[in-house]
Amino acid sequence: MEFQFDHEREQRTGVPEAVFCTHKSAAQIDAILAAARVGGHRLLLTRLDAGRHAALTATAGLDYDPLSGTAILGAQSLLSREGIGIVAAGTSDMPVAREAARTLAFSGWQAPVIADVGVAGLWRLTSRLDDIRRWKVVIAVAGMEGALFSVVAGLVAAPVIAVPTSVGYGVAAGGTTALHAALASCAPGVVVVNIDNGFGAATAAIKMLNAAGRQDIPSSRA
Amino acid sequence: MEFQFDHEREQRTGVPEAVFCTHKSAAQIDAILAAARVGGHRLLLTRLDAGRHAALTATAGLDYDPLSGTAILGAQSLLSREGIGIVAAGTSDMPVAREAARTLAFSGWQAPVIADVGVAGLWRLTSRLDDIRRWKVVIAVAGMEGALFSVVAGLVAAPVIAVPTSVGYGVAAGGTTALHAALASCAPGVVVVNIDNGFGAATAAIKMLNAAGRQDIPSSRA
Amino acid sequence: MEFQFDHEREQRTGVPEAVFCTHKSAAQIDAILAAARVGGHRLLLTRLDAGRHAALTATAGLDYDPLSGTAILGAQSLLSREGIGIVAAGTSDMPVAREAARTLAFSGWQAPVIADVGVAGLWRLTSRLDDIRRWKVVIAVAGMEGALFSVVAGLVAAPVIAVPTSVGYGVAAGGTTALHAALASCAPGVVVVNIDNGFGAATAAIKMLNAAGRQDIPSSRA
Amino acid sequence: MEFQFDHEREQRTGVPEAVFCTHKSAAQIDAILAAARVGGHRLLLTRLDAGRHAALTATAGLDYDPLSGTAILGAQSLLSREGIGIVAAGTSDMPVAREAARTLAFSGWQAPVIADVGVAGLWRLTSRLDDIRRWKVVIAVAGMEGALFSVVAGLVAAPVIAVPTSVGYGVAAGGTTALHAALASCAPGVVVVNIDNGFGAATAAIKMLNAAGRQDIPSSRA
Amino acid sequence: MEFQFDHEREQRTGVPEAVFCTHKSAAQIDAILAAARVGGHRLLLTRLDAGRHAALTATAGLDYDPLSGTAILGAQSLLSREGIGIVAAGTSDMPVAREAARTLAFSGWQAPVIADVGVAGLWRLTSRLDDIRRWKVVIAVAGMEGALFSVVAGLVAAPVIAVPTSVGYGVAAGGTTALHAALASCAPGVVVVNIDNGFGAATAAIKMLNAAGRQDIPSSRA
Amino acid sequence: MEFQFDHEREQRTGVPEAVFCTHKSAAQIDAILAAARVGGHRLLLTRLDAGRHAALTATAGLDYDPLSGTAILGAQSLLSREGIGIVAAGTSDMPVAREAARTLAFSGWQAPVIADVGVAGLWRLTSRLDDIRRWKVVIAVAGMEGALFSVVAGLVAAPVIAVPTSVGYGVAAGGTTALHAALASCAPGVVVVNIDNGFGAATAAIKMLNAAGRQDIPSSRA
Amino acid sequence: MEFQFDHEREQRTGVPEAVFCTHKSAAQIDAILAAARVGGHRLLLTRLDAGRHAALTATAGLDYDPLSGTAILGAQSLLSREGIGIVAAGTSDMPVAREAARTLAFSGWQAPVIADVGVAGLWRLTSRLDDIRRWKVVIAVAGMEGALFSVVAGLVAAPVIAVPTSVGYGVAAGGTTALHAALASCAPGVVVVNIDNGFGAATAAIKMLNAAGRQDIPSSRA
Amino acid sequence: MEFQFDHEREQRTGVPEAVFCTHKSAAQIDAILAAARVGGHRLLLTRLDAGRHAALTATAGLDYDPLSGTAILGAQSLLSREGIGIVAAGTSDMPVAREAARTLAFSGWQAPVIADVGVAGLWRLTSRLDDIRRWKVVIAVAGMEGALFSVVAGLVAAPVIAVPTSVGYGVAAGGTTALHAALASCAPGVVVVNIDNGFGAATAAIKMLNAAGRQDIPSSRA
Repeated sequence: MEFQFDHEREQRTGVPEAVFCTHKSAAQIDAILAAARVGGHRLLLTRLDAGRHAALTATAGLDYDPLSGTAILGAQSLLSREGIGIVAAGTSDMPVAREAARTLAFSGWQAPVIADVGVAGLWRLTSRLDDIRRWKVVIAVAGMEGALFSVVAGLVAAPVIAVPTSVGYGVAAGGTTALHAALASCAPGVVVVNIDNGFGAATAAIKMLNAAGRQDIPSSRA
Repeated sequence: MEFQFDHEREQRTGVPEAVFCTHKSAAQIDAILAAARVGGHRLLLTRLDAGRHAALTATAGLDYDPLSGTAILGAQSLLSREGIGIVAAGTSDMPVAREAARTLAFSGWQAPVIADVGVAGLWRLTSRLDDIRRWKVVIAVAGMEGALFSVVAGLVAAPVIAVPTSVGYGVAAGGTTALHAALASCAPGVVVVNIDNGFGAATAAIKMLNAAGRQDIPSSRA
Repeated sequence: MEFQFDHEREQRTGVPEAVFCTHKSAAQIDAILAAARVGGHRLLLTRLDAGRHAALTATAGLDYDPLSGTAILGAQSLLSREGIGIVAAGTSDMPVAREAARTLAFSGWQAPVIADVGVAGLWRLTSRLDDIRRWKVVIAVAGMEGALFSVVAGLVAAPVIAVPTSVGYGVAAGGTTALHAALASCAPGVVVVNIDNGFGAATAAIKMLNAAGRQDIPSSRA
Repeated sequence: MEFQFDHEREQRTGVPEAVFCTHKSAAQIDAILAAARVGGHRLLLTRLDAGRHAALTATAGLDYDPLSGTAILGAQSLLSREGIGIVAAGTSDMPVAREAARTLAFSGWQAPVIADVGVAGLWRLTSRLDDIRRWKVVIAVAGMEGALFSVVAGLVAAPVIAVPTSVGYGVAAGGTTALHAALASCAPGVVVVNIDNGFGAATAAIKMLNAAGRQDIPSSRA
Repeated sequence: MEFQFDHEREQRTGVPEAVFCTHKSAAQIDAILAAARVGGHRLLLTRLDAGRHAALTATAGLDYDPLSGTAILGAQSLLSREGIGIVAAGTSDMPVAREAARTLAFSGWQAPVIADVGVAGLWRLTSRLDDIRRWKVVIAVAGMEGALFSVVAGLVAAPVIAVPTSVGYGVAAGGTTALHAALASCAPGVVVVNIDNGFGAATAAIKMLNAAGRQDIPSSRA
Repeated sequence: MEFQFDHEREQRTGVPEAVFCTHKSAAQIDAILAAARVGGHRLLLTRLDAGRHAALTATAGLDYDPLSGTAILGAQSLLSREGIGIVAAGTSDMPVAREAARTLAFSGWQAPVIADVGVAGLWRLTSRLDDIRRWKVVIAVAGMEGALFSVVAGLVAAPVIAVPTSVGYGVAAGGTTALHAALASCAPGVVVVNIDNGFGAATAAIKMLNAAGRQDIPSSRA
Repeated sequence: MEFQFDHEREQRTGVPEAVFCTHKSAAQIDAILAAARVGGHRLLLTRLDAGRHAALTATAGLDYDPLSGTAILGAQSLLSREGIGIVAAGTSDMPVAREAARTLAFSGWQAPVIADVGVAGLWRLTSRLDDIRRWKVVIAVAGMEGALFSVVAGLVAAPVIAVPTSVGYGVAAGGTTALHAALASCAPGVVVVNIDNGFGAATAAIKMLNAAGRQDIPSSRA
Repeated sequence: MEFQFDHEREQRTGVPEAVFCTHKSAAQIDAILAAARVGGHRLLLTRLDAGRHAALTATAGLDYDPLSGTAILGAQSLLSREGIGIVAAGTSDMPVAREAARTLAFSGWQAPVIADVGVAGLWRLTSRLDDIRRWKVVIAVAGMEGALFSVVAGLVAAPVIAVPTSVGYGVAAGGTTALHAALASCAPGVVVVNIDNGFGAATAAIKMLNAAGRQDIPSSRA
């Protein structure tokens, strides 16, 4: 058997295991889904493109979103938690923003997405600043030169998780420019995940709020 | 005048402005210190090497730490806050780990440092796991191949802020290998800052716990 | 004639010549197979994708494995030798792991494969450690951040041949991150082959045990 | 003779030849200065560090500025022209900003420099926007993640010449991140010069206004 | 709603907003076109390949040019302005040269294109020099080694906007060699845009002549 | 305490822990030496340059070799083991070759070094082939284009551990060209360690022969 | 008209103009062929893949070779010249070797190709050395690690033109490893052309022998 | 003994062995010089900087040139051969141009150097074209963007050996931009050597003319 569920991952790390589908065949994904159904596990699949989704043999109970390439197996979560929000620089960044939103929803978090706020038209961002400042964690999604990360981080008190995207061409192709811009940001408090990694940003945001809310250690010495 | 204090930064973003000294002359740093003294500002200086520290004309009231290259101007903070901890893979990573610890201390956070827990001798890490699991945010500092980031993130529920360091040679020289390992980690929930950026990791950790503790938004709808 | 068998290679180097198919047309491969049949040579073909395999005109006596893209012409070897084992971080790494296993089988080595032992769930690896420690050479296959190489090498006495794979995205795309992690490993005793080079790892493992078993030189001065 | 003055360059291209000193010895520079004195040429020297300036044998009539590493031989220009301005993200970017200002002054242009307007404190930039919007060409100087280029270009009608600087560390070391951010800017109308090339930016700005002011071609068909 | 028109962009920056289509689906582009039609906006679309153009549902009033991949929605501009010209090194560079020409036409500029003037046959360039010297801004388009940029800039007084293209193979593949050649040009006064960015070059050229023609600031003190 | 001996490393992995000195201060190294003396540990130090060696306060009992930058604390090993040999392409590669030889000697292995056998004068290598073919593991050390790795591996039956060195200039500077040549070798059976990593090659060689000699698993099923 | 024949190129540089087809459409190539037919020019086309060749409308008189992707328009040359030879490391390198041979034939040179002489089986090369040593210029074609270049150059007195190919995977993908190996060769007298540039190597070889044979300058003062 | 003279190299390859000093200590160089004196060999040393030259113990009979860092041991050659010439873009490229000239002189070739002919002032090159066109091999030396290579190769019939130099800053630092420009040249017939490799260019030029002059093979079939 080539796949082992890490059943205790959620208990150990606070977030459930997910299945990254890019390098897996439809047959392998079918086998994983079958095992999950037998075991009664809910499951999040990421990077499942439309072609491979169409090639799956059993998609019953699978909630598939083509824009983000995510699929959820099992009961829908009650969206009972709030505090995380997402801003995206352009419409081309929406697949990644949606991957983050779907990952959050899988774990029960309701996360608003504010799109098309690239810094070339700064007023589009500043007009939404009151909303953004209410969030406890900001996920910022941008490609090209990634200037959004620094501008947002300079305007809000919450930590900013930068998700560089592969949107761009020439020197920006593949997302390295946006990634480096996030890492080199002149605005402190920006943390970064891999290019196009909306899933990772969402997972980190959940861990931040979960961990911060734990009561087993005092947050101030009092 | 070539330097403008961003006086409202702490109010706006929750963390005070700091002075990054690498590209500044002793004269420029002296001028900034003088302005801060006049304005009554506390100030954190980073990347102040011993040579330039020795060349400053007025170091009165400046608490300088040569290992981390940090200096603090002004009254010491009461270390009244807890919940952030630091692990470092090797003794060579200590300057960066200390930069993080000093930044945290500047803002009133007491942060333990657990050093020399590289994965080549895994027992050194697992023997300290009970302590590490009590932290709300883990700052992990490692160079070379940066395997520590994934191993730690697979073992704890808190978010892990990876600080890749420039420790290494050959393909690891400059820290890019550790940086990429952090970004590509198979363990979700790892967020990353620039190479050797202990200051940024500390700032992000503070923002995480500050923001999470705000009461202006409910953390669950209930 | 554009292809010359290196007939004496096995005698000279201990391992037979193999045919790397990536840049060869079906016609070229057909010609090589025909020449081998005429000469009575057994032959291992690597990187033979399903499309080109289907385009071959004479596949009689060709044992093709689509997952690894390998084909063996000629009689099956008796799997009479042991001592080499393979660990693979994820199911996506299985094609490369299988290429190694098939190369070993071609030369008469029986090699177990332990899959899905990535370090994000460390217990999956440590629970198999007794088996792994019995091997004389460990082939470790991993993509993404390649943390598996260091963790395994820190736990076993056998040499570890790291095979970085091209599994991953963003900074890990193409396998360079895993490659550099293997080369920069903090655990000594890791040796490395090219990205996705399961064949080369298997060949090196065979050479290690073949050479070590030679009796023409004393292993200690006595 | 290893150096040939390109005497007709100013006539042909609108800007005088300058001497880039990085790879030249003090002896070579002395020879060039002597030839210029004999020929009665004014001369701009760039990248002349303090050490080599001190090693020159004849510095009479040489106006040296250590911050920018520029020296001017010959009569000072009357600063009779306006329309070009410079913004710099941080005090560390001042040497490059000053190189641009000195180059402009050498050709008779008076150019204001507005410093320390990095986007981490956006108000510092927006408070100066009325001044900046009066310029016909904006030279923007920034290192690290270079977010300033996009923000400025989104706010002004003038063309923006981005000068990425080598200020930064980690992924920003050497200036490539700022360079790529400038080239990939989401705000159209940004043009870019080489890293730290304040001289080139100034020269291009002069050419822009010189050429635009020529009367030999109608700017509209009328 | 995921797309926000930046209605005031033309007023604020002198150039209208354009829609970069590479990462957008036909459905997204259809929606943007519909919104523009409703609002009565003219619109320039770039990087619209033939396949996606064919997939659009409503192309009425859309002037599509397959060579450059540009489309214009709305009334054609009167080509009443002159002073900008384009030179292209080879026929393979024509798609990028045409993108620049179309962008200029969208804003009312008539721009001649002189093609196939690569420096391997220098006489092809020098024979056209009288024409080129009449332009106020030169857009130079070249791939491979990009020697054209330096040669042109050494011969004309106008500023040269270099557009490196992705034409080439081996070390020139993707356009980085031409880009670096433009940035490192030994001829001052070259400014550079991203690889294949004909649109950006045209926009910058327009801004240069627009800004230079403004009367709100004197171009000389006099 | 910032340094933890991994006392059980030799027992666990077959090779003792070593101290990599590049990023450590003389004070840190002194502390480690003191701890080793107290604990009665033998110790190998690598990358200890002459300057830092001279700055150590207590070098009694420290056997220092300036060419390789290695030092050994404690009793000399009896050189009772054979079977590993080293070839080096040029005299410039000798520091790395010597690091390997010293590491082997620290563990009791006598390893001959055959130097200056670069492939530009192939006869220098082939004239020594009889000796080289007697070794059970070949460590090959080369910089520049690293052609030696492929040539040797095509001629011997033993596994070849390639150690690329940073010897070279231009595209070879830093050792990446030799590293890539080793990884891409057309001769199977080459395994590779990090640039300049003579220590790692020696350690891997020891592990190969140690593991192969274990009797707890049959080398053939028999 | 977008294409200008450089009619005097052969007279000026000794080699005729060729048409590089990679970035040209079938329509553009048809137009060039038509113009050549009208002008009575012979023409060499390179990088014309089978698909585009099939899409041409008029292939009469076009001698197309699919392996090398070259086509020749016009009368065949008499192969009256000798002295240039080609060695190729593997069968995968044959398309590039053939491009060189076809370019030579276009100009009247008969060039033998010796294939499959990679250094992993050195005897295949040395057995052909007598033939190779008779050539006045050696064109060596190799991908992967490119060790062939150094080995050949160390054995012959003729200049070696290295043509690195894109044959390989992992770190060798795209040909950069072979390119760097050629440039960093320890054997002096190797000159290099771009990756896969068989055409350029042939052209350079022709220029070498043409120029050397000119009588307008004495080859020794005598 | 760590150094082996390759005595038969000149006979085998037509050029004598040289000693590349960058990575060798003064002691090692002294030993090589002593051995050469004993053996009565003439010797060329390259990359011998002034510091190490000063540290040599026996410099009698050593003709040292500090600009190029070359030294010649033994009798001066009669400069009896002609046909090779050198052009250099700027005065900063002179050390490399001189290394080529000295290497040629060591083998008896008189080679003129034409300096400061960068393409920013094209007339400086074209005014010398009659001289350059008389050479049988052109060595072109340039840094920065390396446009000189293409321009020269488009104007002369002789082969052009491009020597990219490390002169430049920003993207040109280290010489990679000039190297890539040479390899990607649009002018066929350019061959390239490693960055700053004046020695290699000279050696290749000698091999070209030596080999072409051999009479053992007819240059045309007659």
